[in-house]
Amino acid sequence: MEGRRSSVVGRQKETGFFYPRLTTDDSRLFLDPIFKPKSIALIGASRRESAVGHAVFKNVLLGSYQGIIYPVNSSADSVLGVRCYKSILDIPDPVDLAVLVVPSESAVSVFQECIKKGVRGAVVISAGFKEVGAEGAAREKELARLATKHRIPLVGPNCLGVINTAANVKLNASFGRDMPASGRIAFVSQSGALCTSVLDYAKGANIGFSKFISMGNKAQVTELELLEYLGEDKETDVILMYLEDLAHPRALIDAARHISGEEAHLKPILAIKSGRTAAGARAASSHTGSLAGSDEVYTAIFAQGGILRVDSVDELFDYAKAFSVRRFPKSGRIAIVTNAGGPGIMATDACVRHGLTMAELSDATRAELKKHLPSTASLSNPVDVIGDAQHDRYQAALKTVLRDQHVDSVLVILTPQAMTDIEEIARTIGTISSKSSKPILACFMGIVDVSGGVKILEQWNVPHYRFPESASRALGALARYAAWVKRPRTVKKEFFVNRKSVQSIFKSALTEGRKYLSPEETFGVLGAYGFTTLPMEVCSAPAQAGEAAKKIGAPVALKIYSPDIIHKIDVGGIRLNICSPGQAQKEAREMLEEVRRKSPASRILGVVVQKMAKKGQEVILGLKRDAQFGPMLMFGLGGTYVEIMKDVTFRIAPIRELGAHNMIHSIRSYPILEGVRGQRPADLAKLEECLERLSQLAVECPEIAELDINPLMAYEKGKGCVVVDARILLGDQNIR
Amino acid sequence: MEGRRSSVVGRQKETGFFYPRLTTDDSRLFLDPIFKPKSIALIGASRRESAVGHAVFKNVLLGSYQGIIYPVNSSADSVLGVRCYKSILDIPDPVDLAVLVVPSESAVSVFQECIKKGVRGAVVISAGFKEVGAEGAAREKELARLATKHRIPLVGPNCLGVINTAANVKLNASFGRDMPASGRIAFVSQSGALCTSVLDYAKGANIGFSKFISMGNKAQVTELELLEYLGEDKETDVILMYLEDLAHPRALIDAARHISGEEAHLKPILAIKSGRTAAGARAASSHTGSLAGSDEVYTAIFAQGGILRVDSVDELFDYAKAFSVRRFPKSGRIAIVTNAGGPGIMATDACVRHGLTMAELSDATRAELKKHLPSTASLSNPVDVIGDAQHDRYQAALKTVLRDQHVDSVLVILTPQAMTDIEEIARTIGTISSKSSKPILACFMGIVDVSGGVKILEQWNVPHYRFPESASRALGALARYAAWVKRPRTVKKEFFVNRKSVQSIFKSALTEGRKYLSPEETFGVLGAYGFTTLPMEVCSAPAQAGEAAKKIGAPVALKIYSPDIIHKIDVGGIRLNICSPGQAQKEAREMLEEVRRKSPASRILGVVVQKMAKKGQEVILGLKRDAQFGPMLMFGLGGTYVEIMKDVTFRIAPIRELGAHNMIHSIRSYPILEGVRGQRPADLAKLEECLERLSQLAVECPEIAELDINPLMAYEKGKGCVVVDARILLGDQNIR
Repeated sequence: MEGRRSSVVGRQKETGFFYPRLTTDDSRLFLDPIFKPKSIALIGASRRESAVGHAVFKNVLLGSYQGIIYPVNSSADSVLGVRCYKSILDIPDPVDLAVLVVPSESAVSVFQECIKKGVRGAVVISAGFKEVGAEGAAREKELARLATKHRIPLVGPNCLGVINTAANVKLNASFGRDMPASGRIAFVSQSGALCTSVLDYAKGANIGFSKFISMGNKAQVTELELLEYLGEDKETDVILMYLEDLAHPRALIDAARHISGEEAHLKPILAIKSGRTAAGARAASSHTGSLAGSDEVYTAIFAQGGILRVDSVDELFDYAKAFSVRRFPKSGRIAIVTNAGGPGIMATDACVRHGLTMAELSDATRAELKKHLPSTASLSNPVDVIGDAQHDRYQAALKTVLRDQHVDSVLVILTPQAMTDIEEIARTIGTISSKSSKPILACFMGIVDVSGGVKILEQWNVPHYRFPESASRALGALARYAAWVKRPRTVKKEFFVNRKSVQSIFKSALTEGRKYLSPEETFGVLGAYGFTTLPMEVCSAPAQAGEAAKKIGAPVALKIYSPDIIHKIDVGGIRLNICSPGQAQKEAREMLEEVRRKSPASRILGVVVQKMAKKGQEVILGLKRDAQFGPMLMFGLGGTYVEIMKDVTFRIAPIRELGAHNMIHSIRSYPILEGVRGQRPADLAKLEECLERLSQLAVECPEIAELDINPLMAYEKGKGCVVVDARILLGDQNIR
Repeated sequence: MEGRRSSVVGRQKETGFFYPRLTTDDSRLFLDPIFKPKSIALIGASRRESAVGHAVFKNVLLGSYQGIIYPVNSSADSVLGVRCYKSILDIPDPVDLAVLVVPSESAVSVFQECIKKGVRGAVVISAGFKEVGAEGAAREKELARLATKHRIPLVGPNCLGVINTAANVKLNASFGRDMPASGRIAFVSQSGALCTSVLDYAKGANIGFSKFISMGNKAQVTELELLEYLGEDKETDVILMYLEDLAHPRALIDAARHISGEEAHLKPILAIKSGRTAAGARAASSHTGSLAGSDEVYTAIFAQGGILRVDSVDELFDYAKAFSVRRFPKSGRIAIVTNAGGPGIMATDACVRHGLTMAELSDATRAELKKHLPSTASLSNPVDVIGDAQHDRYQAALKTVLRDQHVDSVLVILTPQAMTDIEEIARTIGTISSKSSKPILACFMGIVDVSGGVKILEQWNVPHYRFPESASRALGALARYAAWVKRPRTVKKEFFVNRKSVQSIFKSALTEGRKYLSPEETFGVLGAYGFTTLPMEVCSAPAQAGEAAKKIGAPVALKIYSPDIIHKIDVGGIRLNICSPGQAQKEAREMLEEVRRKSPASRILGVVVQKMAKKGQEVILGLKRDAQFGPMLMFGLGGTYVEIMKDVTFRIAPIRELGAHNMIHSIRSYPILEGVRGQRPADLAKLEECLERLSQLAVECPEIAELDINPLMAYEKGKGCVVVDARILLGDQNIR
């Protein structure tokens, strides 16, 4: 905990806050009044059956809440037979939690009464805040300000409420249709309406929850605090989230890593982040008034935090079923046992598509299978026990493949054929699964005939699926999660750099009111952070270019120097392979003329004479500081790979060694860096180091708004990388 | 029909047969005895309840078959109270269809009796054929031979049987658990076990079938004949197929295009092709003993035939539900009506991911919506009618967006909130949908609470889904299909070419026992087919290279000429930009030395002197003749795009104009051809023409086994393409 808490402090320095960040040392204690209140005041409890205030009150009562609930209603004496109070201040006993279902206009004053009463937590269900415009947003801001000032956690506004199914609490403070079954899955949603659907789906699919939280507008309590709370929650094994934006991206990464990524206390986190596409993001901003960032950044955040990103609700619960068994494969080698060849092929296809490999069964396994299976059965993987198989054959096959050391997980497929004793087979799988340390998933293909078997699988806690595709996808997710947990633990390196010289560069540029650094300054900053840069000189006249070429030594390149021209080549602003000072002078003159002609509006500050780079593999390193996400690093191959194929990867700085490694390995064109057609592999170690240095630069120099190293020339293994061209843009001073 | 039949003859010349092709003019009449028999002999009808021969007989009886069934059993007098015959020959009346459920050893002799009896069709359910080894394969071959000789259609062996739910037939000649409901979907499966699962799934999901066919080993009747039959079947609106391989790929393309692609009689075809991945294909070949081809080729075949390829069974039926309503969108502009923002965003994400665009609602539509919806509702797309919406608000919103000319289809999302009158809303959607020409899909999110509404949607024939992802995916499929139907109709061009000179080149090479054509021969073939090639000369000595350079004119390139060296650059076998005859002679000598040193085992036949190509965009055109698929064309960009990014596309020759267009547009790197960073667009028209010429070459010259044009240099619009390097390999004479 100690290390973690200190990193919380660290991250507060790194990222600006979009939402007011709660200044708490321990989310667990802080949120307890929300989830485990001893007493509740429901302000706005209503006698009118169609009212939300009625539904919430009824849910608390019918959910067998273990504490005391006090309905508050200014005009009624009782609701559902329970005595009412005119105001929360009239309640004679202490109140832990205030639940507000009041018109938004009166929410602030009601909340002020709650503060006066000394409540320790609040859930504001009422709508009419940020989502309806400026006036609502002002009210919401005031609620959050008051809550934070008085150290009261506040969930909402504009939410469905919260549910805790724990036996000693049994709180359904929501207006969902009814209390969900108890289970070990927690669900956090930024959409209240989705909650009602998820509750109904869970009811039909026999899925239970530990906690169920509708976050609403996230005025104060956000997914970060909830995640930290659920991370410590003993009743929760898997955390599911539906998100439309993130309040504290960098902090979420740290919290999620800690919760999901440590073998000592594994707790997988699965999330839907909607608003993936540009059109989707538009809908998001009209919906919650929140700013949705670019999708690639969320992918990076989830990857860095070890959060499994999923696309749909059924995928989310397909995975949750598999994860809640808490049995994870050693690696991705899967065995399939099936009574039908076709579905076996489909499952194989799907497994491979989801990153698994088909286990090669050992000779001993095949020999053992041969003893138990008919001669026409397939003894290789998928193991086909043939259509007339009954539970004895399934039992033999399943036990045998489970014993094989090459098998990490098993998918059992059943098609309901004439001879199939479906329920006996389900029982057999259940019995074996309960004793196995390897995950076993079942796919009983169909709906009606297999329903008896499915019920038995549920009793035995065996995750089951209707078709091979969804089962394989869930197994793939298990394996990805297992790989994440087993990842090598690396550190964030700290390089010795010359911060002082960088600061003086920034200072002089800012003093002169310049946002773009000059080529010399840019190379100065990069050099101070340990990047190798090519010798170069900025020249204001052609004659000077000749001298510079002489000093630097042929061959040289000429580049136009203009803060207004980004794609120099498009305006004739690049000349390569110049072999003599005379030629340098001549071409500098010609180039200046050409660029002035082609780009008359651009300010031209001179010509850069630079040592020609030896040919290598061009890559691009980038940094962009985002108000919401903080410093984002980018990596990709040069040229069309970035521009056309969009083959780039992002991470939020700072990154660890493994992060740099993963960035380089995750682009599609990575094999090019390993060397194609007889080329030697690029200096990957040095590339990783460059990314780590860039990460340090990003964190230590908040003055930089954008930085492009394009290209960085990567040479073969052991020969390093050289910055050929780069560009640094300083930010407004308020973006840090 | 006339045109189609003649193309059937044409295609028989193009493709070798993997299976014996049925010589029939009219599949419809040919297969009628299978699907509409007036009388059936069930040979192997059994009194033993666990026997397949019992299950099939019972299914025929309980399915209310409208004809007469004669059980045949050599030892029993009756089965289920029906009089038995010792042999089919003992049946006093004519028999249309023989269904065989007999040991595989006796299948051939039993079938010979059937022939003697004069049956007009056969379904062989028995297993024990190709799938169990050589002996079984021989039996299967003999069955097929006899069937084809006597012009009797034979389905199977090793299958579940066939089902026809038509009211005047009601035939369930299968051993599935029970008769499916009647419907307008036909299902054809290469996996019998999958059939049992699909029947169970359909029972649970209230899906009905017109025909249901388990093809088994496809000894004689294959998916091609079945597709042609179902294409003409008046009871079938949508055809679903599960395939593990294809018997007649080229013929299937033609048949599928005709069935699915003509507006006059639309019949969508949806297919799962399993064995997609390498591991999957391994399972396929151990399962059916059939050869599965590379996955990209199947993608090409399905694209060319207008067959929608899907990955999983639930996707297949999700689509079938939407397609069976037979209402297709004009284009991909979708409107979403929802009572919840979050699910609206999820749907938007999914729609965009599946190729749809969010419709821009007109001002009139927004004004009209404003009249009916509360002030907090979203009037833009997705239209959010807010959580407390009841059917009146849904009705107003749905009617309004349907009237908007910018809307081609509508997705209605419902989350079961406290106020939601689910069943009334379902009825409202049903009523509106029944009068609409635009497709309307419903997504009632949940299971239990929404079940009453779902039942009503089913009564109204509104396709419904549990979550936005699957609904959006189905809508995307509808739009893709609609676009396919509306595709421009183009022709297969016929270029004037010099076939005679090509034939004489082949003849002389084959006479000399050479399979690789020389550079001159290769350019000769391509030149005869209208490709522009660079001037070149093959030289046997360095001095000759100097002369050739003089004749051709500087600058020239030198390339090593060796049938054994494919990647010339790797052994120093390429020298570029040679400016004088003297230099050509010198470099030719040096190159010969270098190549001999680096590749001592290669036969070196000389040096090719060739005019240097001007810089353009390098692309690759390829042709590979496959025993199963026939001539496959390939297209991609040069260099790493093909080798690393695998960014290539395939088609089976011949292709039409549109096919060439689609090949070029379907690679990911296509934008590069349109010009990046100020480059002019490539000569796309000429590139298309090159592909069409290659297609003609592929069809007219079966001697060519493989051909690579790598690179073809494409210049800017209007400036054409030039073959820089190419390679032609002739095939064994039996591959045609």
